[in-house]
Amino acid sequence: MQSVKVVFHIDETDKWPLLLANIRNLIKAVDIHSSEIVVLANSKAVSIFDGQTEPNHSEAIAAISSSNVKVQVCENSLNGLNIEKSKLPSVVEVVPVGVLALIEKQTAGFAYIKP
Amino acid sequence: MQSVKVVFHIDETDKWPLLLANIRNLIKAVDIHSSEIVVLANSKAVSIFDGQTEPNHSEAIAAISSSNVKVQVCENSLNGLNIEKSKLPSVVEVVPVGVLALIEKQTAGFAYIKP
Amino acid sequence: MQSVKVVFHIDETDKWPLLLANIRNLIKAVDIHSSEIVVLANSKAVSIFDGQTEPNHSEAIAAISSSNVKVQVCENSLNGLNIEKSKLPSVVEVVPVGVLALIEKQTAGFAYIKP
Repeated sequence: MQSVKVVFHIDETDKWPLLLANIRNLIKAVDIHSSEIVVLANSKAVSIFDGQTEPNHSEAIAAISSSNVKVQVCENSLNGLNIEKSKLPSVVEVVPVGVLALIEKQTAGFAYIKP
Repeated sequence: MQSVKVVFHIDETDKWPLLLANIRNLIKAVDIHSSEIVVLANSKAVSIFDGQTEPNHSEAIAAISSSNVKVQVCENSLNGLNIEKSKLPSVVEVVPVGVLALIEKQTAGFAYIKP
Repeated sequence: MQSVKVVFHIDETDKWPLLLANIRNLIKAVDIHSSEIVVLANSKAVSIFDGQTEPNHSEAIAAISSSNVKVQVCENSLNGLNIEKSKLPSVVEVVPVGVLALIEKQTAGFAYIKP
């Protein structure tokens, strides 16, 4: 199977189910070990990590992480919603500026998809 | 006029009018015969092909197809909505995994636009 | 600090606050003088320039423009909403076909972000 490099962008809470479905379909179709698949969450989309919002998709996020998908969240967005990094699932990475990460990935040859 | 390579992504039913207007404007501004313009529909956006949803934009889709625009739909999404391929307009192509097609196009130098 | 090339796409009126917040965060993180940051507004997003819609974000748009961000609007979209170019803030540029500008920027190596 083929390798891909792609960053999925999510900035709305209610797009998580669609994004996770997209990724599950993609995982089945590519060689996940040689692929680089990144989810970049910023703005309201990070609210699922505030310890109160339901559903928080924690099982689905753990599942895609175990399939070599990186889940990254924007530190500016966490700060804006007063979410402490200590509340994040251990598989989630923090990047300082989400939009800058989106640019850097594309400059490095990643495709961009906004579900 | 210039040539372009672009994939338009649609995953919401109510975005079809905007997407079709975008494409009509683009067609007037480029050399359509040397351009590669693709519409990739996945998720809920494919529901217009279920034989019941109105408007189904069939005339507009036929019109852009006759202007060398390819319209592709995600097979996973069709299956998820129980839409048989036999119901699709003859101009519409099926791709197995919509998000993979979006990645492949960008890797091949296509721009990405999400109306 | 690093340089970036990016085009932000907006086609919905209510996405202006999110887009402007994204850009303010980005500006703080890059060298704005050697970067090329473009906002391309088409479809309904240009309605903030009709002289009636509030908020029209005029101060925020002037502020990012003074930080070397280009704000471009689609002429087709202005015409569709009967907005005269004379009503536009002086910092705003008009491009004939918004989606074509989005393609040209990406072909020239700009990243694409749709907040």
